[in-house]
Amino acid sequence: MKNLKVAYQGIAGAYSQQAIYGFFSQYNLKVDPVSRSSFRELFETISNEGVLGMVPIENSTAGSVVQCYDLFLDYDLEIIAEYKLDVNHCLLCLPEASLEDLTQVMSHPQALSQCSNFLDQHKLTALSVFDTAGSAKNLVETQDKNTGAIASMLAAKQYGLKILKSGFQNNNNNTTKFLVVKSKNKHYEFQSQFLNKDKCSVIFKTRDIPSALYKCLGGFATNQVNLNKIESRPVPGSKFDYLFFIDFEGNPKDTPVKLALEELSFFSEQVTLLGCYHKE
Amino acid sequence: MKNLKVAYQGIAGAYSQQAIYGFFSQYNLKVDPVSRSSFRELFETISNEGVLGMVPIENSTAGSVVQCYDLFLDYDLEIIAEYKLDVNHCLLCLPEASLEDLTQVMSHPQALSQCSNFLDQHKLTALSVFDTAGSAKNLVETQDKNTGAIASMLAAKQYGLKILKSGFQNNNNNTTKFLVVKSKNKHYEFQSQFLNKDKCSVIFKTRDIPSALYKCLGGFATNQVNLNKIESRPVPGSKFDYLFFIDFEGNPKDTPVKLALEELSFFSEQVTLLGCYHKE
Repeated sequence: MKNLKVAYQGIAGAYSQQAIYGFFSQYNLKVDPVSRSSFRELFETISNEGVLGMVPIENSTAGSVVQCYDLFLDYDLEIIAEYKLDVNHCLLCLPEASLEDLTQVMSHPQALSQCSNFLDQHKLTALSVFDTAGSAKNLVETQDKNTGAIASMLAAKQYGLKILKSGFQNNNNNTTKFLVVKSKNKHYEFQSQFLNKDKCSVIFKTRDIPSALYKCLGGFATNQVNLNKIESRPVPGSKFDYLFFIDFEGNPKDTPVKLALEELSFFSEQVTLLGCYHKE
Repeated sequence: MKNLKVAYQGIAGAYSQQAIYGFFSQYNLKVDPVSRSSFRELFETISNEGVLGMVPIENSTAGSVVQCYDLFLDYDLEIIAEYKLDVNHCLLCLPEASLEDLTQVMSHPQALSQCSNFLDQHKLTALSVFDTAGSAKNLVETQDKNTGAIASMLAAKQYGLKILKSGFQNNNNNTTKFLVVKSKNKHYEFQSQFLNKDKCSVIFKTRDIPSALYKCLGGFATNQVNLNKIESRPVPGSKFDYLFFIDFEGNPKDTPVKLALEELSFFSEQVTLLGCYHKE
């Protein structure tokens, strides 16, 4: 069987690439990760080239990846699975360097803030760069003994760097939730293994009526459909008009979910079902 | 009268500094902006040194500044006002450079993404750095003719850079909402001018009961208290346990708000009123 092409944002060694290996190996599927430099290019690749995508959507300490939420509005994609990756940040340096040599550490702003306790303690200056794996690659290119990088174990291996510390983030429960996404008009054989579709993600915009959000949520409460997440986001382009993103348990084929979605539609201007998939 | 000390995150030329001048000039108050390098240091300064703070909380295109939401849990601060700043990004370069010289542009990741259309169109590589004003400062230090920076007009003035483009973000309705924050046990004379306290911000954690969020919002709906914003955030340290941040209209002295908050408290484990202030 041909390897599955799965696109991700970042360069080799990114946590997204680690998530691709982690998710697909559960189904004994071989993958070819496809690197894309921005989230928009990632969504475009999934939409136009018909490959799968691994999209980070929320980190347990840093919150939602809002750019990805917004991109779901621009592309007609479907979520087919979610995957939670335990993020264990590693402090990397050149093979000949040691912790005492370091004066600054570069990484993605989120990784820097997640490891801020250690950096503060060792008086290391935080240097913000575009991504974690990029900081590892950059270190090899500059050969700077005084700079460290925070990235994945995969990145250490990829770029031949020394691991000074692993799992050294402030908080040990650091999990990133990824969504496995495909173009709506593609179907993959392996999807037949995804039987237990017990969670849905939906975007909606309420009608301009009093207590609109409360009314939109009423159908979920009265039909005992559990919400897992709710987030209001300014409508792109408007000043403070809001869209809502919710995750809830169940399948639109079940009567309670069907009724809740009908009620939601009645009180909304627009409802988009992003997908129904297995709750990890 | 002595100038008011107001702390902000960033260096001279930051949008937060621009917000400080914009907000306090409305009340003819003179200010001394105090720069802090991280959001945590900003909150610490407001809490321990008893100075005021200008805290960015949400951008209309990039979403919430989640680190700031989390910090409200760690420090006992009070919101006394909100201020909306129209963000007009400027493309800056060295005085002797021109657009044709540029191959890359550095800025904060949010500013880069907000100007991505122009960068894509001119095939300019986006280089992520810690803040917008920092990119302007960096440009002066490196004297690199081939690199541009995206920052405020204040930063152009501060660092003597040339403005190639202004207001060139993808979306012209780019607004950042700031909160004016103080230590709970400080009182400022000028606060007596803030008469119209018609908006509140609250953090709460629901009890572990069915339809908890719906029940928490019920008091707002039945007492006709309008919600302006809702966001669920993972409880720091827990994997996917949620806190909710809401903004609503009204004052706890008014009966409808009082009743809504009582009902919210009944269905919540914890409710923290962050402040009551004038809705901009």
